[in-house]
Amino acid sequence: MLHQSDQLDLMYQALADASRRAMIERLSRGPASVSELAEPLDMSLSAVMQHLQVLEASGLVNTEKVGRVRTCRIEPQALGVAERWISQRRARWEQRFDRLGEYLAVQADDKQKEEKS
Amino acid sequence: MLHQSDQLDLMYQALADASRRAMIERLSRGPASVSELAEPLDMSLSAVMQHLQVLEASGLVNTEKVGRVRTCRIEPQALGVAERWISQRRARWEQRFDRLGEYLAVQADDKQKEEKS
Repeated sequence: MLHQSDQLDLMYQALADASRRAMIERLSRGPASVSELAEPLDMSLSAVMQHLQVLEASGLVNTEKVGRVRTCRIEPQALGVAERWISQRRARWEQRFDRLGEYLAVQADDKQKEEKS
Repeated sequence: MLHQSDQLDLMYQALADASRRAMIERLSRGPASVSELAEPLDMSLSAVMQHLQVLEASGLVNTEKVGRVRTCRIEPQALGVAERWISQRRARWEQRFDRLGEYLAVQADDKQKEEKS
């Protein structure tokens, strides 16, 4: 099993390419075969397979071959991991501002009381 | 100005490295100078500067030099852009399942009514 940090490396690496994002975009609307994925991309099947390998290694997409058809699906839980890493850092930054706001409000309140007394 | 797709390339590329994520992690707790950023990383200042350039080019971090000190800050709006691209695709996938669930519930309901009538 991959270490969480290595998995994040692979996931963000997978997301850092417009063709791979287009494949995830397509798969967010439902499972697709490799040729369905390739169709709107104006790309050779072998190029699509290479991108698919990057997506699969990252865990963002899984594929299953039944007979001659390989069906691709996104993994919403893996997308959730990539999303949460960012949202938690953003939330921490915003909480910092909230605390700063509260502190300044208390300071202003204290000053007002002092002036009144 | 960068096209949104190019900006996403740069942002996910920037996030695809554990040292750069450690720098964002640190900056989510508040602004820091370059040497403060470098300290916990066991990395040369020049390596830190290189990572910082990648983060700055992506828009996830901005830096400002006053006198001899360069202060680094995260850009929560840019983090929001990287976060939303993922969350929107995940939400679409989940809505798909919700609709499928509703459809199956209606089908089951219709079948029950048919059996009763």
